[in-house]
Amino acid sequence: MKDVLTTETELLVCVTCRRKGAPPDDARRPGRVLFDAITAQDRPEGLRVTPVECLQNCSQSCTVALRGGDAKWTYVFSNVDETDHAAMIVAGAAQYHAAPDGVIPWRERPEHFKRNCLARIPPVRPKES
Amino acid sequence: MKDVLTTETELLVCVTCRRKGAPPDDARRPGRVLFDAITAQDRPEGLRVTPVECLQNCSQSCTVALRGGDAKWTYVFSNVDETDHAAMIVAGAAQYHAAPDGVIPWRERPEHFKRNCLARIPPVRPKES
Repeated sequence: MKDVLTTETELLVCVTCRRKGAPPDDARRPGRVLFDAITAQDRPEGLRVTPVECLQNCSQSCTVALRGGDAKWTYVFSNVDETDHAAMIVAGAAQYHAAPDGVIPWRERPEHFKRNCLARIPPVRPKES
Repeated sequence: MKDVLTTETELLVCVTCRRKGAPPDDARRPGRVLFDAITAQDRPEGLRVTPVECLQNCSQSCTVALRGGDAKWTYVFSNVDETDHAAMIVAGAAQYHAAPDGVIPWRERPEHFKRNCLARIPPVRPKES
């Protein structure tokens, strides 16, 4: 497990996400608000937060993704609230970071992750079990 | 560009996808039909097709994903028809394979890719431009 935890986890946050019906020239988009709220949280060592311009899930924003090297699943999550969900996202990212294959056991998984997983992509090189 | 083309492209095909309303015990699911149709096509060297059990996009199946090493965007596409779309998917995958960052120029992109991109994930290590 130690070697897994030395692999960095990346939490990608779409900073261009906006709400449906929001004015197109909004100076500070919900995705940017979410990014700022997430980076204001304490987070475990090895969890990096990266701003991204458009994950192309504009209809169910805000959107975040988690990846962590070749041995882990990548996840994309939708419908993230930019003010209420920052702490939940960081807590879930910490669970992902601690899971060797990135799969958080179902019963421990945040409810939002259970219900708003847009897609998942398998590891490039799954660990031999 | 040469070094890019030596990086393998992986076309991931969800083989557990079914259609809404299909019986739950269907012996050969649409995702499997799609996989078989895709692997029956000619494809460029370096394009590998991988069956995957569930990309968690069950509501808009069939689903495929494209990835190709650390310098490329990863894409997930929805609503793929298991019989009509196999050749289009392979042609689009070949275009992706040839694109250094995986981004097919918009005007050359298959219409289905334009309208059914579920999500995209940025390169782990973008090439210096």
